[in-house]
Amino acid sequence: MTLAASKAGKVVLKNFNNDAEVIVKTSHQDIVTKTDVASQEAIKKLIRAELLKLKVNPDDICFISEEDKNITKPKKHTFIIDPIDGTTNFASKIRYFGISIAYANFSSVKLGLIYDPVNKTKFWGEQGKGSWVKYDHEPVTKLNLKTNPKVSNWVLSCHYNGLEVINKQFAQYKKVYPAVRGLRTLGCLTLELCELAAGHIDVVLNGGTYIWDLAAAKLILEQAGGKIYTPAGKNLSLNFKNPSEIYQLVACDKKLKKKVSQLLK
Amino acid sequence: MTLAASKAGKVVLKNFNNDAEVIVKTSHQDIVTKTDVASQEAIKKLIRAELLKLKVNPDDICFISEEDKNITKPKKHTFIIDPIDGTTNFASKIRYFGISIAYANFSSVKLGLIYDPVNKTKFWGEQGKGSWVKYDHEPVTKLNLKTNPKVSNWVLSCHYNGLEVINKQFAQYKKVYPAVRGLRTLGCLTLELCELAAGHIDVVLNGGTYIWDLAAAKLILEQAGGKIYTPAGKNLSLNFKNPSEIYQLVACDKKLKKKVSQLLK
Repeated sequence: MTLAASKAGKVVLKNFNNDAEVIVKTSHQDIVTKTDVASQEAIKKLIRAELLKLKVNPDDICFISEEDKNITKPKKHTFIIDPIDGTTNFASKIRYFGISIAYANFSSVKLGLIYDPVNKTKFWGEQGKGSWVKYDHEPVTKLNLKTNPKVSNWVLSCHYNGLEVINKQFAQYKKVYPAVRGLRTLGCLTLELCELAAGHIDVVLNGGTYIWDLAAAKLILEQAGGKIYTPAGKNLSLNFKNPSEIYQLVACDKKLKKKVSQLLK
Repeated sequence: MTLAASKAGKVVLKNFNNDAEVIVKTSHQDIVTKTDVASQEAIKKLIRAELLKLKVNPDDICFISEEDKNITKPKKHTFIIDPIDGTTNFASKIRYFGISIAYANFSSVKLGLIYDPVNKTKFWGEQGKGSWVKYDHEPVTKLNLKTNPKVSNWVLSCHYNGLEVINKQFAQYKKVYPAVRGLRTLGCLTLELCELAAGHIDVVLNGGTYIWDLAAAKLILEQAGGKIYTPAGKNLSLNFKNPSEIYQLVACDKKLKKKVSQLLK
């Protein structure tokens, strides 16, 4: 997975300084670039080749990603890929986007890796073992979430997820704003969930995301002591049988769930 | 100025991985850290020493910065300093903040420099000559703003500037949102104005900022073909006689002023 992310990172960086060929999908706010597709193909090709070297049965391998939604059920070796999370940032040359790869045994996520190729930052986690970050030129650090309980110190990551949810999101962010230190919209959910795992952001709010944005980041966050909830406060679980399912979420330090739901009420 | 920014960058980075000692100023959203003060003092000390080596009369030197507001009039060698723009990001360890230094002959800004010490990015400009960016491990690039005129491709930088203006800001951002590709709140005005100069962000909106955030970034932006306006569409000019003056602004490619004001109307 590290090799695949690194290979995809090279593909992405090669195209980063050229003009991104943006293809509009459902609206002018939902875009894809040729680089997303090239990055995805690079990851799939490398992972498949490595697994075949290990004599894995090809029928046991499957991929779930933005352009591969048509699976009916996950397999023994399932990889959930977002080849560029933060495509708008990428297309605009805002230097903050990530490549996300998760590995699941059927629908149980075991490994997660998120790589920011511009800044050469890598977050990763392993089920039951922990999660870590490596910033360029810095030592590896284990992630251990200890959010300051004082709400007035918090910085919230607030996404704007399209016309269906935007009125509700603006109303919520406006209501919460006076109580906290600041709101940020950095434009890359996977990295923002990792920033939460690292204790840099205190709450992440998102009103429309998919399994490929969440699989790796959720594992990394949970291994650090964070948790992802539905807006109603239930544990968010990923539905591998329907990769088109849209998730709304609140993520935070699990010890502060009650405080966060009071803030958002 | 480059030496001073680099020296201040070292001071800031040394403290970045320790717990920032946050001092609340007018509210929990208006903070300063000991590192801001240390960075400011490092910049002033180095610039003063270099000028004295050049036999400059000390009475001709003055500094305007967040903690040095009490000047009555600018001098022959005036330096306008923001030792950390993006203090909230710095305090939360979000890796996006800048050190801003401008040089003015009386109230005419001649040079501007903004340095992002974490990512080692440097933006600078010289009156009448141009402006440039140097990303770490990349060649120097001249900035030349050519915003795509299609509004639906634009990414807007939207700041949230405190309780006095927040209702107006939320109303405006909400109204504009459906027309554009995305909104971002990155939390560092100086760097966001530089991203505009580089063509990565298309419009910057801010409802409460100061001369020390603007002096360097305004020069860099203007040299690239951008412009800063008041919300009423007038050219924004800096008032050196009152460093406490609060500015509201709209910044964009000057060729697209009309299109931006239509969007914001």
